Amino acid sequence: MPSTYPSFRCSVPWLILFLEAVFIVLFYFLFSDVYAFFSYPDLQDVSHMLIFGFGFFLTFLKRYSFSSIGFNLLIVILGVQCSILMDNASVFLTGRTVEAAMSMVAVVISIGAVLGKINPMQLIVMTVVEIIVFCMSRWINVHILEVSYRVSMMHVHLFGAYFGLAVSSRFSEPPPRAEKNASTPKSDLLSMLGTLSLWVFWPSFNSVLPPQKNEAIFNTCLALAVSAVTAFAVSGLTTKDGKFRMTHIHSAALAGGVAIGYAADRIKYPWIAMILGLLASTISILGSFCLQSCLNPRLKIHDASGVHFTFGLPSVLGALAQVVLSVMEIQTKSPSIGYEVVLIIGAFCFTISAALVTGLITGLILNFKLLKPIPLSKYFEDQMYWKFPHLAAGF
Amino acid sequence: MPSTYPSFRCSVPWLILFLEAVFIVLFYFLFSDVYAFFSYPDLQDVSHMLIFGFGFFLTFLKRYSFSSIGFNLLIVILGVQCSILMDNASVFLTGRTVEAAMSMVAVVISIGAVLGKINPMQLIVMTVVEIIVFCMSRWINVHILEVSYRVSMMHVHLFGAYFGLAVSSRFSEPPPRAEKNASTPKSDLLSMLGTLSLWVFWPSFNSVLPPQKNEAIFNTCLALAVSAVTAFAVSGLTTKDGKFRMTHIHSAALAGGVAIGYAADRIKYPWIAMILGLLASTISILGSFCLQSCLNPRLKIHDASGVHFTFGLPSVLGALAQVVLSVMEIQTKSPSIGYEVVLIIGAFCFTISAALVTGLITGLILNFKLLKPIPLSKYFEDQMYWKFPHLAAGF
Amino acid sequence: MPSTYPSFRCSVPWLILFLEAVFIVLFYFLFSDVYAFFSYPDLQDVSHMLIFGFGFFLTFLKRYSFSSIGFNLLIVILGVQCSILMDNASVFLTGRTVEAAMSMVAVVISIGAVLGKINPMQLIVMTVVEIIVFCMSRWINVHILEVSYRVSMMHVHLFGAYFGLAVSSRFSEPPPRAEKNASTPKSDLLSMLGTLSLWVFWPSFNSVLPPQKNEAIFNTCLALAVSAVTAFAVSGLTTKDGKFRMTHIHSAALAGGVAIGYAADRIKYPWIAMILGLLASTISILGSFCLQSCLNPRLKIHDASGVHFTFGLPSVLGALAQVVLSVMEIQTKSPSIGYEVVLIIGAFCFTISAALVTGLITGLILNFKLLKPIPLSKYFEDQMYWKFPHLAAGF
Repeated sequence: MPSTYPSFRCSVPWLILFLEAVFIVLFYFLFSDVYAFFSYPDLQDVSHMLIFGFGFFLTFLKRYSFSSIGFNLLIVILGVQCSILMDNASVFLTGRTVEAAMSMVAVVISIGAVLGKINPMQLIVMTVVEIIVFCMSRWINVHILEVSYRVSMMHVHLFGAYFGLAVSSRFSEPPPRAEKNASTPKSDLLSMLGTLSLWVFWPSFNSVLPPQKNEAIFNTCLALAVSAVTAFAVSGLTTKDGKFRMTHIHSAALAGGVAIGYAADRIKYPWIAMILGLLASTISILGSFCLQSCLNPRLKIHDASGVHFTFGLPSVLGALAQVVLSVMEIQTKSPSIGYEVVLIIGAFCFTISAALVTGLITGLILNFKLLKPIPLSKYFEDQMYWKFPHLAAGF
Repeated sequence: MPSTYPSFRCSVPWLILFLEAVFIVLFYFLFSDVYAFFSYPDLQDVSHMLIFGFGFFLTFLKRYSFSSIGFNLLIVILGVQCSILMDNASVFLTGRTVEAAMSMVAVVISIGAVLGKINPMQLIVMTVVEIIVFCMSRWINVHILEVSYRVSMMHVHLFGAYFGLAVSSRFSEPPPRAEKNASTPKSDLLSMLGTLSLWVFWPSFNSVLPPQKNEAIFNTCLALAVSAVTAFAVSGLTTKDGKFRMTHIHSAALAGGVAIGYAADRIKYPWIAMILGLLASTISILGSFCLQSCLNPRLKIHDASGVHFTFGLPSVLGALAQVVLSVMEIQTKSPSIGYEVVLIIGAFCFTISAALVTGLITGLILNFKLLKPIPLSKYFEDQMYWKFPHLAAGF
Repeated sequence: MPSTYPSFRCSVPWLILFLEAVFIVLFYFLFSDVYAFFSYPDLQDVSHMLIFGFGFFLTFLKRYSFSSIGFNLLIVILGVQCSILMDNASVFLTGRTVEAAMSMVAVVISIGAVLGKINPMQLIVMTVVEIIVFCMSRWINVHILEVSYRVSMMHVHLFGAYFGLAVSSRFSEPPPRAEKNASTPKSDLLSMLGTLSLWVFWPSFNSVLPPQKNEAIFNTCLALAVSAVTAFAVSGLTTKDGKFRMTHIHSAALAGGVAIGYAADRIKYPWIAMILGLLASTISILGSFCLQSCLNPRLKIHDASGVHFTFGLPSVLGALAQVVLSVMEIQTKSPSIGYEVVLIIGAFCFTISAALVTGLITGLILNFKLLKPIPLSKYFEDQMYWKFPHLAAGF
């Protein structure tokens, strides 16, 4: 009975066109010249990750694959334009296209937390709000907390995960064994396609900003490798009969890349990167148990694609590792490093609180009647948003 | 009843071997040395687009996925060899591998128009004829109409689309609601895989030839971004209940990249690229309605994968934009630009008429009894061409 | 009845963790500095091939797709770490990350031969043994047989195929028409996804080591092109009604790239590369008939993904071509080339015998009770190793 679905005909298209018109006008005023300072291989790898990697990574829901991949495209593109403008408007003015695209990872991660629960209208509002807030948080990180530009960018996973969780807490939980909130082997395979793309391109992501690119790449590769291997071990240990779970592999294989983000170019010994990958993967899988059985039900949070343990916990670990590395460097370097440690911790606390507070506020905004929040019974369903030609023919 | 299918055993394999033998002999005489002047990243991106991107882009038909992807591989490879030889034989002698591969986009687009309606025999004949004609048309463009080499190459979408349509007009239309001429959600997703690959690599395509690579890349990215966003808006507006259609996203997301092709490196302001992307996407979706409901039935053309509105109309728009840009430059530059405008229009008209005329002739040739055209009832079916091992086991 | 499956809970995870601990300790002692001498584009392409390309290439079995792609990831990553350590421990000391990844192709090929027949425990043991043996065989090739480092690396296909076959001969054959030992159109398409990825990236693989990169790339492209085209011709000729078989396209399309590996940078004329591609493809498809109907049943070998004719025979052809090319160069160059020919033949014979002997021994080891070999009835089945969430919900 399609008549029972709300129609977004008078809202979503016009909102998109309005935003696009605003972007074009702003580009007209702000960019007197073509804005072309970037390395194309970096841009290509990051856009491959965002469009192709995250797009397929999110297609694990059995009835939500069109929306996962389609809306991911929409959101990434809208967000990147918004991010380019924000970068340029802010005092950075280093503002380069690749960095603008990297910021979008925060939004894509957040969307993972509310996947299937918010409509395109809400998605767009959330994207614009989050990218603006994240850009401001980075500005404060760099200009007030004196954190390096590179580290401020690596907060992208942390910010994305906790912003998404805070938003998610404002939406009602689906029943624990909802038929639609599940994957099939086919959709898990598609999601694996995205995961492997992300896995292969992750070293590019971590090496865009550091000057010592090769060190960053090599350390990221090692951390990713160890975290993927450990994922199998820990996944096997957490089931009664030693079988693996594909969802564990999806999330834990990437955990190493997330955790090493902050310090990829500063790690001097390969074994440190490997240990970090091992810890990240273990925390990710063990965290998935604790969170799903204890914390989430109590806080009434439903984390649709497990962004908390895929991106949140590993980035907390990464921040911790960065602090430890800095402390270890004290003995060898100047005493000013103590001040640096305080700043790193301050930036971390500030970013996580900013994400949680603005996420909560955004969650409240998204529940406004104006944005037509969808009822619980219509969660995780493509049919609300997509016209299927085959349905006419009795598929 | 497989006995009712025509067998291509005595024709297709021998035709392929004959062509391959001819190519090897010609390579023997023409290339005394290894022909290795090219940039590998460019070649890799273009071949990724042709083999992987277009291959999956065409897999939307529910019972034709093996043929879509398999024959695409066959055709691309045969065509590239043919194209290398033509480039070398022609007076260009700049003839480089990447450009030879780029020409193949014309053939792949044309094949989209007759997808599922012609057999491998006809496909191969069409490929060879089209690549020769396109190469000659480029030669005339460059040497007689004095158009730049770069612009002559960007006619590839225009030529491909109208050649394909002309060929398609010589084949009978399938019944409007043919069961096999439809997609399923799975096949639409596979097609989306191809679309996203094409989308990510399109900036590479537009930046192979221009010397100002970064400008071309940035403008193409913007045009693609705006066209994908606009695709969602316009798609939502054209359905009664505001739902999106995946086929609109497939075609309109790429329209911006096609439209900006001609002038990607000459556009000075980002907002022009964005406007072009917006127009391309709008024209593509609105065109799909007008063409499918008015023009195509009247002209008895069946455009299997919508190449007219995916590649044809956007490239017409791109050519128009190029003229407008040239006219606007008159005031600032030398008066000789008026002459340039006439040449651009002339080259455009020549290319489109060459495509239509040679396409019609090719369509007539393809209907020769010798090439065993397939009956209407066998359209859009893999079983004619592929042995399925699982069928023996009662699949 | 999951209770009938053996549980790997007490073995596989601990084995993985043990190996990972050993690797970390060895990295701690062996690498005092970050090990970062590599070209990132090469590393990215090779890892794309290994993780994404081979992963999907092996997903053709209808009930084994999770294991194909998951275990491929596990094995590749474990193997690369092992290979980095071996390279470093050996006297090479050139040991670079890309080369370590390239060696893993041998293991991935071998695993193709026993796909679905060995459990993760056996897989890991086989990986570690094979990578050590292959590294030693390369050492002997370079330091005793005085073969160039590049050629010793190109033995990777030869070694992988014959090692895998030897291991496979120690496992019982599945019944000829086993229901589970088959592909579906969907799984064949996924496998095509992997094949096309491999096809597009193969020129990168062949051009990592040679100094004349562009020649190697161009020759590899030509050989791959001709072999894919020929695959269609020969596949059509070998069926009664001229239909194509997807499995032929999968294997023969890559045969050209394998065959040209040894001499990609030494071939002076494009037509030689093309002839080699044509022969490789023909040998691959004709070989698949001879092997599957005559040799394999007699030797009681079951070659699950046809590695013998996809990688084995083409690499034998490639070695032969290398010898012929060297002999042809005698007249033009110094007489010492006769000695070189002897060395090439010696290295070839040594590598193939080393592969067969150590493969047989490894096959015997893998059948130890300790490693819990799986019974014939559980071959080709994901359910042994993976927890499917949807099964609980009555999928």
